[in-house]
Amino acid sequence: MKLLEDRILKDGKIGAGNVLKVDSFLNHQIDAPFISELGKEFHRLFKDEGITKVLTIEASGIGIACLTAIYFGVPVVFAKKTETNNISGDVYTSEVYSYTHERTYNIRLSKEFLTKDDRVLIVDDFLAKGSALLALLKLVEASGASVAGAGIVIEKAYQPGGDIVRSLGVRVESLARIASMDENGIEFVK
Amino acid sequence: MKLLEDRILKDGKIGAGNVLKVDSFLNHQIDAPFISELGKEFHRLFKDEGITKVLTIEASGIGIACLTAIYFGVPVVFAKKTETNNISGDVYTSEVYSYTHERTYNIRLSKEFLTKDDRVLIVDDFLAKGSALLALLKLVEASGASVAGAGIVIEKAYQPGGDIVRSLGVRVESLARIASMDENGIEFVK
Repeated sequence: MKLLEDRILKDGKIGAGNVLKVDSFLNHQIDAPFISELGKEFHRLFKDEGITKVLTIEASGIGIACLTAIYFGVPVVFAKKTETNNISGDVYTSEVYSYTHERTYNIRLSKEFLTKDDRVLIVDDFLAKGSALLALLKLVEASGASVAGAGIVIEKAYQPGGDIVRSLGVRVESLARIASMDENGIEFVK
Repeated sequence: MKLLEDRILKDGKIGAGNVLKVDSFLNHQIDAPFISELGKEFHRLFKDEGITKVLTIEASGIGIACLTAIYFGVPVVFAKKTETNNISGDVYTSEVYSYTHERTYNIRLSKEFLTKDDRVLIVDDFLAKGSALLALLKLVEASGASVAGAGIVIEKAYQPGGDIVRSLGVRVESLARIASMDENGIEFVK
């Protein structure tokens, strides 16, 4: 999506450890009118899928999920992060390894809000090694719901997450796919 | 706002310790089309204030903030929670005491995204004792920005937060104000 690629080139910053920072429009400041255009694009891509729910993970997925769900006219449900194994109530849980923070955490989702009748669009800001997305897919599988696909804002296509998830037969639509990135700049997949 | 009061009566659950659970539409599942109506109401209330930014706090404020900001055509910025005092970079910080979790945590906001030229609408899901809202007001004060007011979804009017913040001269608009709440039901401020 050219609109997004241009924005990444204009406002993205490459920080220590080759981390792409898009804090100014995606995950600290959220440029709501701009992100809403991305939501509209996810709707264009998945509008014939009978989506009943948009699933994401706190915190940085929530904004893009809400601004997408509005086009589908459906609710968002977000998986909560927790550092404890002591999870109470009727919840689905799965495990995420964070490469950024070098630790494992659990995510949980109330069983009330995802059932076998749901048709789910997963939305997230980044896809790199795929740990968060795989964990969300496990929650959906546990619920018996079906997955229409995943809408990702930025995929680091040089990392294996996208290939792993696509090899499971899951449709992944990434609005920007980065082929390579270093101090000289960012190249997108053509 | 009658639409919201009716929804709270229909879907709100009063749990252990007199906690109001609105997980089904506000802070776990987010009923995006419904919450967008609340955003429209915040816009009606604050539309003449020259708002340049909507400020909230992760995680449960992000959805309502995005669905409000879209009516103003401005960005959201959300304060991040952190358990460490070891905060790096150019950030504003302040302290929140969580009565729910019985501990103090810090919130931080990059200086880049709030400046003296901003006119800020603070948005949050709940106002009870006021700890989070007071911490957000401190961040705004530190930035030199001005505060147009706070848009709150649910105010527990029997707790002191609303009075404390209003006594500072801050305009607080709460879409539902709960006068009392127990196992027999919920009464709103008339």
